[in-house]
Amino acid sequence: MSTQTLPKTPAEIRKLIRHNQFNSVTGGVAPGYVQANLAILPRDVAFDFLLFCQRNPRPCPLLEVIEPGQFEPKITSPGADIRTDIPRYRVFRDGQMVDEVTDLKDLWREDLVSFLLGCSFTFESAMVDANIPLYHWETGKNVAMWRTNIPTTPAGIFSGPMVVSMRPIHQEKVVRAVQVTSRFPGAHGAPVHIGDPQTLGIQDINKPHYGDAAPFSEGQVPVFWACGVTPQAVALQSKPSLMITHAPGHMFITDMRDTDLAAL
Amino acid sequence: MSTQTLPKTPAEIRKLIRHNQFNSVTGGVAPGYVQANLAILPRDVAFDFLLFCQRNPRPCPLLEVIEPGQFEPKITSPGADIRTDIPRYRVFRDGQMVDEVTDLKDLWREDLVSFLLGCSFTFESAMVDANIPLYHWETGKNVAMWRTNIPTTPAGIFSGPMVVSMRPIHQEKVVRAVQVTSRFPGAHGAPVHIGDPQTLGIQDINKPHYGDAAPFSEGQVPVFWACGVTPQAVALQSKPSLMITHAPGHMFITDMRDTDLAAL
Repeated sequence: MSTQTLPKTPAEIRKLIRHNQFNSVTGGVAPGYVQANLAILPRDVAFDFLLFCQRNPRPCPLLEVIEPGQFEPKITSPGADIRTDIPRYRVFRDGQMVDEVTDLKDLWREDLVSFLLGCSFTFESAMVDANIPLYHWETGKNVAMWRTNIPTTPAGIFSGPMVVSMRPIHQEKVVRAVQVTSRFPGAHGAPVHIGDPQTLGIQDINKPHYGDAAPFSEGQVPVFWACGVTPQAVALQSKPSLMITHAPGHMFITDMRDTDLAAL
Repeated sequence: MSTQTLPKTPAEIRKLIRHNQFNSVTGGVAPGYVQANLAILPRDVAFDFLLFCQRNPRPCPLLEVIEPGQFEPKITSPGADIRTDIPRYRVFRDGQMVDEVTDLKDLWREDLVSFLLGCSFTFESAMVDANIPLYHWETGKNVAMWRTNIPTTPAGIFSGPMVVSMRPIHQEKVVRAVQVTSRFPGAHGAPVHIGDPQTLGIQDINKPHYGDAAPFSEGQVPVFWACGVTPQAVALQSKPSLMITHAPGHMFITDMRDTDLAAL
């Protein structure tokens, strides 16, 4: 089913996903609604992970935490089922990816705690609406990402460097980009740095650690935001016995509207 | 020692408190620095309480959570000791207050988790700076507070009504009061309601459940904010085996500046 012919409400789209009638990446699906990153961890490390997110709100903006064993995100998406309503999941054991699945029915356990985290789609939509063009949107590529020399604030067993995403922004639009993204602290918020990759420990702006390189046009400068890959990278470094995430680009579509996430 | 002759930095004032040379209420002390509510709970209920705060950021704006057994608030106030640096503590067992103490040295345990939460001093200072007079500041009284019919979002064992504080604001300054306090989501943020106490289930605006009644001058309307009494009231309702808080008005003085809490 193509994106054009999809139904329009998140609940309808989640139902298609649940019944394996839609299993693609979710970019551009249900425009105007908040999409979320997923991280599922066993209860014994959930307090540490919740604390890690509380201490690092820019890379880890919590939208909802679902209590142990429960699978309905009652706050952001009543009626949804976190075990079935994401097109594709990745399963990690002891820090290594062991499987990619389309539902979690066979993997579900009573001690699993699910975390939904804000995603860059929300603030990118706001930038595009504000007439700030984004190379990776226009070309269908992935955003460029790097591990940096910025440490996250550790919590319990979790620590590690912040991952950032970079978007080339024309210097005339940099101030507007700061303003527009600052409104969305629940989706990574304002940039963490403008201008000099070296400051973040990034040696080659043309060689991202994740995603696709973005070329610079005349007058564009690199602008960096905290990235939702951070919590996954940090969590896997501690080699939890089990961790389940969405597959890249295959997000959970909530009932929240982008405007619900606006700070003001 | 009177407030006037106190040293000016939070670290110096905390040192006096630690050595029992200052044991009064902290309002007006170290102006410009963020003061915090304290809640200490055993680890077995700490995940639920952290989740409760995450789900109810307006009454429970988390500034810092100190990991089990640790007592230094490294993020907001390096070098401080949460067991000694508050002028007065209250000790609750099974939901009942059993003691008021000036330090926690005899009570400290390896499983205790400390939560520091934003306090109304921050947004009240911002209002006073914006030329919005506050009756309880001018008279040295306590702000008026009520339990409401607004439910908090439950988390694990914790649930209950939101407690609000009320300040009479002249109708010409209500919009400015919304703007000024919206900047400080880390200190309860924007009002939860303007104008009609009945909407919140408050029967008599002259009879607060906590604190002192505030009279209304011509043209003033009641404006309500989420209140930091909420987490304490909700936690005690679940009768935890042990809970320790600051005594009313005797806050923890952090190294953060009020402006550090500003969203924008």
